[in-house]
Amino acid sequence: MVKRYANKKVDRIFSDENKLALWQATELAVIEAGVKLGKVPAEAFERIKRIWTSTPIDIEWWLKRDEEIKHDLNAFIDERIRHLPPELQQYVHANGITSYDTEEPAFARMLLDCAALTDESYRALLAAVMDLAIRHRHTIMMARTHGQEAELQSFGARCLTWFSDLGAAWGDIGALLDKLRFSKISGAIGKYGSIDPELEREALGILGFEPYYGATQIMPRVIYARLGQALCNLVMVIQKIALDIRLNARSGRPLMREPFGKRQKGSSAMPHKKNTILTEQLEGMARMAKGFAGMITDSIPTWEERAIEQSCVERVAWPDLFHVTLRSLDVLTKVLKGLQVYPDNMLREVHESRGVYASAEAKEFLKAHGFAHEDAYRLVQLACFLAFELPEGWRQERERACGSYDEARKALETVESLEPDKVLSIRRIISRAILKTSDELDIGSEEVSAFNGRLRSLFGDTEIMEEWNRLFDPAFHLRNEAVLYKRILGID
Amino acid sequence: MVKRYANKKVDRIFSDENKLALWQATELAVIEAGVKLGKVPAEAFERIKRIWTSTPIDIEWWLKRDEEIKHDLNAFIDERIRHLPPELQQYVHANGITSYDTEEPAFARMLLDCAALTDESYRALLAAVMDLAIRHRHTIMMARTHGQEAELQSFGARCLTWFSDLGAAWGDIGALLDKLRFSKISGAIGKYGSIDPELEREALGILGFEPYYGATQIMPRVIYARLGQALCNLVMVIQKIALDIRLNARSGRPLMREPFGKRQKGSSAMPHKKNTILTEQLEGMARMAKGFAGMITDSIPTWEERAIEQSCVERVAWPDLFHVTLRSLDVLTKVLKGLQVYPDNMLREVHESRGVYASAEAKEFLKAHGFAHEDAYRLVQLACFLAFELPEGWRQERERACGSYDEARKALETVESLEPDKVLSIRRIISRAILKTSDELDIGSEEVSAFNGRLRSLFGDTEIMEEWNRLFDPAFHLRNEAVLYKRILGID
Amino acid sequence: MVKRYANKKVDRIFSDENKLALWQATELAVIEAGVKLGKVPAEAFERIKRIWTSTPIDIEWWLKRDEEIKHDLNAFIDERIRHLPPELQQYVHANGITSYDTEEPAFARMLLDCAALTDESYRALLAAVMDLAIRHRHTIMMARTHGQEAELQSFGARCLTWFSDLGAAWGDIGALLDKLRFSKISGAIGKYGSIDPELEREALGILGFEPYYGATQIMPRVIYARLGQALCNLVMVIQKIALDIRLNARSGRPLMREPFGKRQKGSSAMPHKKNTILTEQLEGMARMAKGFAGMITDSIPTWEERAIEQSCVERVAWPDLFHVTLRSLDVLTKVLKGLQVYPDNMLREVHESRGVYASAEAKEFLKAHGFAHEDAYRLVQLACFLAFELPEGWRQERERACGSYDEARKALETVESLEPDKVLSIRRIISRAILKTSDELDIGSEEVSAFNGRLRSLFGDTEIMEEWNRLFDPAFHLRNEAVLYKRILGID
Amino acid sequence: MVKRYANKKVDRIFSDENKLALWQATELAVIEAGVKLGKVPAEAFERIKRIWTSTPIDIEWWLKRDEEIKHDLNAFIDERIRHLPPELQQYVHANGITSYDTEEPAFARMLLDCAALTDESYRALLAAVMDLAIRHRHTIMMARTHGQEAELQSFGARCLTWFSDLGAAWGDIGALLDKLRFSKISGAIGKYGSIDPELEREALGILGFEPYYGATQIMPRVIYARLGQALCNLVMVIQKIALDIRLNARSGRPLMREPFGKRQKGSSAMPHKKNTILTEQLEGMARMAKGFAGMITDSIPTWEERAIEQSCVERVAWPDLFHVTLRSLDVLTKVLKGLQVYPDNMLREVHESRGVYASAEAKEFLKAHGFAHEDAYRLVQLACFLAFELPEGWRQERERACGSYDEARKALETVESLEPDKVLSIRRIISRAILKTSDELDIGSEEVSAFNGRLRSLFGDTEIMEEWNRLFDPAFHLRNEAVLYKRILGID
Repeated sequence: MVKRYANKKVDRIFSDENKLALWQATELAVIEAGVKLGKVPAEAFERIKRIWTSTPIDIEWWLKRDEEIKHDLNAFIDERIRHLPPELQQYVHANGITSYDTEEPAFARMLLDCAALTDESYRALLAAVMDLAIRHRHTIMMARTHGQEAELQSFGARCLTWFSDLGAAWGDIGALLDKLRFSKISGAIGKYGSIDPELEREALGILGFEPYYGATQIMPRVIYARLGQALCNLVMVIQKIALDIRLNARSGRPLMREPFGKRQKGSSAMPHKKNTILTEQLEGMARMAKGFAGMITDSIPTWEERAIEQSCVERVAWPDLFHVTLRSLDVLTKVLKGLQVYPDNMLREVHESRGVYASAEAKEFLKAHGFAHEDAYRLVQLACFLAFELPEGWRQERERACGSYDEARKALETVESLEPDKVLSIRRIISRAILKTSDELDIGSEEVSAFNGRLRSLFGDTEIMEEWNRLFDPAFHLRNEAVLYKRILGID
Repeated sequence: MVKRYANKKVDRIFSDENKLALWQATELAVIEAGVKLGKVPAEAFERIKRIWTSTPIDIEWWLKRDEEIKHDLNAFIDERIRHLPPELQQYVHANGITSYDTEEPAFARMLLDCAALTDESYRALLAAVMDLAIRHRHTIMMARTHGQEAELQSFGARCLTWFSDLGAAWGDIGALLDKLRFSKISGAIGKYGSIDPELEREALGILGFEPYYGATQIMPRVIYARLGQALCNLVMVIQKIALDIRLNARSGRPLMREPFGKRQKGSSAMPHKKNTILTEQLEGMARMAKGFAGMITDSIPTWEERAIEQSCVERVAWPDLFHVTLRSLDVLTKVLKGLQVYPDNMLREVHESRGVYASAEAKEFLKAHGFAHEDAYRLVQLACFLAFELPEGWRQERERACGSYDEARKALETVESLEPDKVLSIRRIISRAILKTSDELDIGSEEVSAFNGRLRSLFGDTEIMEEWNRLFDPAFHLRNEAVLYKRILGID
Repeated sequence: MVKRYANKKVDRIFSDENKLALWQATELAVIEAGVKLGKVPAEAFERIKRIWTSTPIDIEWWLKRDEEIKHDLNAFIDERIRHLPPELQQYVHANGITSYDTEEPAFARMLLDCAALTDESYRALLAAVMDLAIRHRHTIMMARTHGQEAELQSFGARCLTWFSDLGAAWGDIGALLDKLRFSKISGAIGKYGSIDPELEREALGILGFEPYYGATQIMPRVIYARLGQALCNLVMVIQKIALDIRLNARSGRPLMREPFGKRQKGSSAMPHKKNTILTEQLEGMARMAKGFAGMITDSIPTWEERAIEQSCVERVAWPDLFHVTLRSLDVLTKVLKGLQVYPDNMLREVHESRGVYASAEAKEFLKAHGFAHEDAYRLVQLACFLAFELPEGWRQERERACGSYDEARKALETVESLEPDKVLSIRRIISRAILKTSDELDIGSEEVSAFNGRLRSLFGDTEIMEEWNRLFDPAFHLRNEAVLYKRILGID
Repeated sequence: MVKRYANKKVDRIFSDENKLALWQATELAVIEAGVKLGKVPAEAFERIKRIWTSTPIDIEWWLKRDEEIKHDLNAFIDERIRHLPPELQQYVHANGITSYDTEEPAFARMLLDCAALTDESYRALLAAVMDLAIRHRHTIMMARTHGQEAELQSFGARCLTWFSDLGAAWGDIGALLDKLRFSKISGAIGKYGSIDPELEREALGILGFEPYYGATQIMPRVIYARLGQALCNLVMVIQKIALDIRLNARSGRPLMREPFGKRQKGSSAMPHKKNTILTEQLEGMARMAKGFAGMITDSIPTWEERAIEQSCVERVAWPDLFHVTLRSLDVLTKVLKGLQVYPDNMLREVHESRGVYASAEAKEFLKAHGFAHEDAYRLVQLACFLAFELPEGWRQERERACGSYDEARKALETVESLEPDKVLSIRRIISRAILKTSDELDIGSEEVSAFNGRLRSLFGDTEIMEEWNRLFDPAFHLRNEAVLYKRILGID
C-alpha cells in the first residue's frame, strides 16, 4: 500500500520482522511439543530457545539466501540453524513438518492481529455514530428516498440506521474469527505422514490454536475468504454512510459537511471550494476493498494437495485490504467526529417541502373519512403536484431563459427580484378545497370539482380540521423513533 | 435475462432457432467450399442444400437427442443427416471438421449481430444527447465539482461531455469488431490435422469471415473479452450520465427530472413522490454489466488445446450482457428525450451562489493587480466564506434547534418567517472592502485590515470597478464553450 | 437463467405467481395484526381473506396495470383491491405501510426457501463425498503438491479434505440464515412514521419473522450480501473438487473419471474422446457465481433512506446465483456418485515414483543417524534426482527427436522398443550408496564420495536396513489417516 | 506493491520525484505557451525555468505542506513559487488553470511510459515464444482437449497459438495508446472558463499531447480503463500459457518443466520436489490483475464535473497493475527461456495412446469406404475403448486393491511385475477386424460381428491397408502446420 493510505500497525504485523518472529514461534512450539511427547530432550529445547531469542534474525542474510534457493522458509531455517551447535540442529523443523506447517499458524496470527485492530477502529466508529445519534435525537430533517423528499425523521434516527448497518456488516464477526483459531501442523499433504497428530495438538496449543482436521498442505482458503468478504462488506457500508454525507453536503444549502481545516485549501483554482474529499475517498476505498476481496475469493481453489497460486496474492491483498479497511474506518470516524451539521438548513428544507412529508398520513386520513383507496391517493397526489406548480407567467420565462445569453441575463434578474416561494402547502390546498387540474396528471375537471366538494363538506367540521393540522406537526412524525433508540442503543 | 429487462432482438439472435440455422449455414458453407476445391460433387451440395432449406430443423427432436448423447452439435448433425439419403451423408460434417468448427463462425455472427444492435441504439442515444446539447446551449447552470458549486457552464456544454464520454467508450468500436470478422474451421486442435487450410478459407469466405491463424479447437477468448469489456465500459458511462441526472433531480429545487407519466405512481405510501427510478435502474444495470463482463474476462484462459469451461458462461453472460447494454442505452435515450429541465431553478442556484462561481477569476484579477499569489488566494477564500456566514444571532438558533421537538417547532417558525438570503456576494465583499475575520479561516484581524486597505485603493478606480463587475457576467464565463460545440459537434 | 442450467424449484420460488402469493401473505398478515391490535374488525379480515384466497391473482391484469403506472406493488394492490367491496378497501395496504413493507418479508422468504433447497443438495453432496471417503479408505495414491508427486495418501483421505472444505464453506450457514429471519414493516423510511411498531411485530410474527430495528425503507443489503458470498464460496469449493478430478482424469493413465454414458459422444470429430465436460462446466459455474455475487456485493450501498438501484440486480442475480449453486451441487454429486476410480493406475504411479514419496522420512532418518540437517537434505535430493536420470545415450536421442519428422519417427520406434523404466528407486540408491554427481545439482564429486562412504557404513547394519525399508511401506505412510476419519466423519 | 514483485522502473515512474518533475513540466509548458500567445514576457519564462531547473524540488517540504493544507498540487505550487521573486509569481499556475490541468498530462505521461515498458517486455516474451516455436517445429506431441489426448501436433505449433494469443491481447495496443496522447488544460470544469483554448493547445503541444475536447475537470476515465483492461487481458493470456506448462509438468512423466536452479530447494520437507512455483505464481498474478483492473473499471463514473473518488484508486491500482503485468511478462519469459522440454516423454505418450490420435481420420476413412456416418463413428469409438480395456483378470485386482492395506501391498507388487502395456492400438483392432463388445458402449454382439465382417473384406485389399497405415504416421498429421508457421511467423 502506498504510504499515504498505509496503517503503520498493519505494516508492522505484515513486516518481515514480525513474520519471521512468528515463524520462529512455531518452530519453537513444535520443539517444545516434542519435549512434552518425550521426543526431544527438555534441555535441547531450552538451549535452542535461549540461543534464538538472544540472536536476532538477520533479515539481510535471509533475503540473500532466499534469492539463492528460491524458498523463503528454507532460507529462514538456514538462518536460524546456523546459530546452533550440530547436536541441536536435528530438532529443528524436524518430525516431517513442512514449510506451511510453520507458516500457517503465523499467517493466521497475522490475520487475527489485524482483525483485532479492525475491531478496535470499528468500535471507535460505532462510538462516534452513537454520539451523533444521541446528539441529534431531536434534529428534524427530511428523509429522502430516491433522492426525493419523503417523510420526516431526526438526523439522529438516520445515524441509528448507520449504526445498525455497521453492526450487520461486522457486529457478529466473532463467530467468523473463531474459525481462524484453527490451524494445522500436519505435514506436506496434511495427512500426518510422518507427524504425530498429538504433536500438532500440543504445538498449536502452545500457539493458541486448535488443530483443523481436513487440511491439505495448507488450510482451506475458504475460511480466510470469508474474513476478506466481511472486511469488504464493512467498507461497503462505510461507503454508504459516506455517500449520505456527500449527498447532504451538496452546496447551495448543505445539511452537513465534513470538517474543513482552517488552513486547508479546497482547490488550486477556486478559493471558495470546500470539497468533500474525505467522503469521496471512502468511495475509492470501497472500490479497492472489492478488488482485494475479489483476489482473495479467487484464491479459494487450488490444485490437489495445494499449489502456490495464492501465495503472491496473499502477500499483497491481505495487508492492502486491511490498510483500506482501517483507513476507511478511521477516516469516517474523523469525518463524523468533526461533522458540521446545519439544523437550520434542514428546517428550511422541511419548510419548503410544502407539507408533502405528510402525504401518506393525508391519504390515510382521507381514507378514514370515507374516500376510496384510489381516490384518496389521486387527490393527495394532485394536491402535492399543485403545491409545486410554478406561478402564472413564469413558465414562459422558463422557456425564454434558454434562448440566448441575453435572455438568460434578464431571467437571472427576474429571479433575483422574486419573492420567496409562496408557501402553498398541501395542508392548505386540501383543507381549503382549492384543487384544480394539472398538466402533470390525468385527472379531469369534473373529478376535481367533485373532490373539492367532498373536501369542503369534510373540513367544515372544526374537530376534523384540528385532527388534520396535527398531521403536519413534525413531532407527530417522529413519535415512534423512541423505539429505535430503545432497541438499537438501549436508551429511553 | 428476466423478461422485464430482455431485448427481444437479442433473444432472437441467441435463440436455439437462430443458432441452429447458423450452424446449418456453416455446414453448408463447408460442403460448398468442398465443391470449389473439387472434393464434393456440385450436385451433392445442391441436393443437400435443397433438402435442408426445405426441411425445418426439429428443435424438440434435437433437444431429446442432446439429452441422450450429451453433445448438442452431434445431436444437431444427427437431426440434419436423418433427412438425407445415405449417399449424401458422407459429405456432412466431414473432412475432419469438429463441433467448434461449426459453432465458432455461428457464435461470432451472433456477437456481430448483437453488436450491430448496440451500435444502432448507441447512435440513437448520441442523437438524443446532441439534441439536448444544442437545445441548451444557452441554459446557464452551476457546474459542480465534488458536489460543490464550481464555475458556470451551460447545460448544453455538460451534455457535450456526456457526448464525448459515450464516444470514448464506444466510438471507435469498429476496430474491435474487425477482429470479430475472423474465425476458424481448422479442426479439433486448430492444426488442420485433416482439414485443408484452403477449405477453411473458402468456407469462411462464404460466411463473411477470414481465417484466424493460431486458433486451438476454438478462437482465443481474449478477442471476445475485449468486446465484453467495451460493452461494460459503455454501460459505466451511461451510469455516469444517469448519476448526474439523479443528482440534479434531488427534490427541493430540482434542475432536471426524468419523465413521469400522467398516470404513474411514485410510491404506494407517499402520493407526492416522483422517483428517479429509471436513472437508478441504470446504476443497477452497470453492476450487472460488470458482473457479466467479469465472467467473460474470467473465461480467457483454457487448458491446452481447449476445455469447455467457457461454454456455460457464454450461454448466459453474452446474451445477458447485451440485454443489459441495450436496456441501458434505450432507457437513457428515453430519459433524455423526455427530460424535464428547469432553467429557472438553475438560475436560482446561480443567483444564490453569491458570485463564488467567479472566485478563480477574482483571484487572477487580484494577482494581475499586484497581489501576491498566496495573498490573492486567501483574500478571495475569506470573502467566499464570509458570503455564506450566518446572520448574527442565528447561530445560537441553530444550536437550539436540536434541543427538543418544541425548540425545533419554534425554530421552524423562525425559518418560515425568514427573509430571503441577503445577497452578500463576493463581488460586493471584495469591491467594497468589507472583509472581516472568520472562525473558519486562520487569518488575523491585522491581515484583514491590510487587505481591506489595499482593496479600497484598488477599487477607487472606476475602470477597475467595471472590469471587476464584468467578471461576474455569466456570458463571460461561457464565452469559450463555442470551441467545444465546434470541435465535438462540428457546429458554430 | 437459460433453461439448460435452471433449477425448476428455484424458478418456481422466484416466479411471479409465488412472489404475488407472498405479497398477499404479507398484506393479510398486516390486516390480521390490525385485528390483534384492535384497529381492524375481525370480521373484515375474515372476509378479505376469504375473498382473496378464493380469487386467484390475475397475472396478466397485473402486468398490464404495472406497465401503465410503472409500479409493480401498486399494480398488485389494485388487482387485489378490485375484488373487495368498498367498505373493505380501507384496510388494505393501510396504516402507512409502503411497498417494501410488503415486499421485504416476501423477498426474505424466497431467499430462505432457496437456501433450504441449497442445504438439501449440499447434504446430498456431503453424503456422496463421505461414501467415497469410506469406500476408498485403503486406496493408495500419490498426493500431489504443485502438481508434483509428494507423499502417499489414500484417495479416501483426499475425499475427507473435500468434505471439510465443503463444511468450511457452508457448514455453519445456519447462523447466517438466522439473520434472514429478521425483516421490516416500518414504513417508507423505516421510522414508523405512521406505523405502530407493535403492528410490525405482530404481522412479522404471523409470517415467521422478527422485526429488524434500524432498517430504512428496506432491509440493509449487507445482510443478504453475506448469503450471496457464502453461495459463491460454496461453488468455489466445488470448483476445487472438480479441478482435482479433471487433473486426475487426464488421459494416458487416468486415476479417475467422471461417468460417461453408454450412448454418449465425446466429440464430433474424434470418436475416442471421453471428455471431462461436467467438471469443466463446474469451473464455468464458479465464474458465474463470482459474477453474480459481485453484483450483489455491489448493491450494498444505497442513497439515504434508499434508492432502487438494487432492485433490477436482485431480480436477476439472486435466482441466477441459486441456479448456479444448485446446478453445481447437483452436477458434482452426480459426478461423484458415478465416479470411475482406477486404483491400478494409482498404484502404477506409486510404483513408478521411485520411492520419492518417502523422501521426507529418508531425510529425517539420515538426520536421526547423524547427518547434519543440510547434508541430509542434499543427499536425499541428489538421490531423488538420480532416480529419474535418463539412461546413458538417451539424452542425445532426446535432442535428435526434435530435428525433423524423420528423426522423430525413428525416436518413436526407439521408444516403442524401450524396456520399462529401470526401477532405480531412492531406497536402493541410498542404501546401496551408489550416489554420483548430477548435472542438475551443485554437488561436487568429493562430497558425493564422502556421502557414499557414510552411507556404506550406516547400512552395514541389518537392523538399520530393516528400519530403512519400513520407510517405504505405503501402509506406514497412511497410518495416521485414522485420526482424520475419526475427527471428520466420527468413525474408527 | 510489495518489494518482492515490484518493478523498479515502474516504481521510478510513479515516484513522487518523477510525478513532481512532470508537474513542473506542465507548469513550465503553460508559461511557455503564454509566451507564444503574448501573455507572458519571454524573459519571465526563461528566468522561471532557470530557477526551477537549478533548484531541486524539496520532497520533504512538499509532504509537510500537503499535510497542512490537504492539497498536494497546491503544496507543490507553494514549494516551487517560494523560490521565485515576487514579480515572477503571478505567472505560475495562472490563467485559471486548476490542479488537474497540471496533473492530467503528467498522469497520462506516466501511463504512456509504463505502457512502453510493458511493450518492451512483451516483445521479449514474443521473441522467447517464437524461438521455442522454431526450435520445436518437429517435436511431436499429443494435443489435448479437455485434458484428454486428442490429435497430434508439434510442440512448436502449440507455441504458435501462444504467440497468437499474446498478439490478440496486446498486439494492436497502439490504437489504444493513441488515445492516451490526448490530455486537457481546460480549467476547473473543462469549459475554458478563464483559459484560452489556444493556450491549452500550445502547452499540450510542448508536452507532446493534443487537446481532448469534452473533458470535465479531468479526462474521462473510460479512456484509461481500456488500458487497464488490456493489461489484465495480457496477464490472463500469460496465465493460460503458464497453465499449459503446469499441466505438462505434472510429475510421473513430465513433458516440460520450468527451470530449476542447481542450488534451489523445492520443499522444506520433501527434498525430491521440483515445484512449478513460477507458473503457479502467474496464476496468482492474473487474480491480482483482475482485481486491479476491476478497481479501475469501477472508477469510470464520477459526479458531474468530477469528484475525487478515483484518485486513491489510481495511486494504488495503476502502479500495481503495471508491476503485476511486468512481473508476469518477465517471469514467463524467464520460464520459456529456461524451459526444459522432454521430447522422449512426449513420444512415449504418443506411443501409449494406442493410435487414437488418428480416430478422426479413421472415421473419415471408413466413411470414404462406404460406412454410414453413424456406423463409422461408433465402430471407431468401440475400437478406441477396446484399445484401453484392462487385461483379463485385472479388473478384480483393481477392486481388491481398495480392500485393505495388505491387499494394496499385494496389488502394488503385481503392478511392479507387470509387463509394459500391450500395444493394442486401434490401427490393429480395426484392420485385423478384432472388435468385440464392451461394457462401456451400448453396441450388441451382432452389430459387432457385422462390423468385423465388413472390415475383413475391406482390409483384404493391400492398397487399402497401406492407405490405412499412412493415417497413423505422425508426420502426416502435422503436414499442414506449415501454414501456421507461414502465416503467423512469416517463415517457410
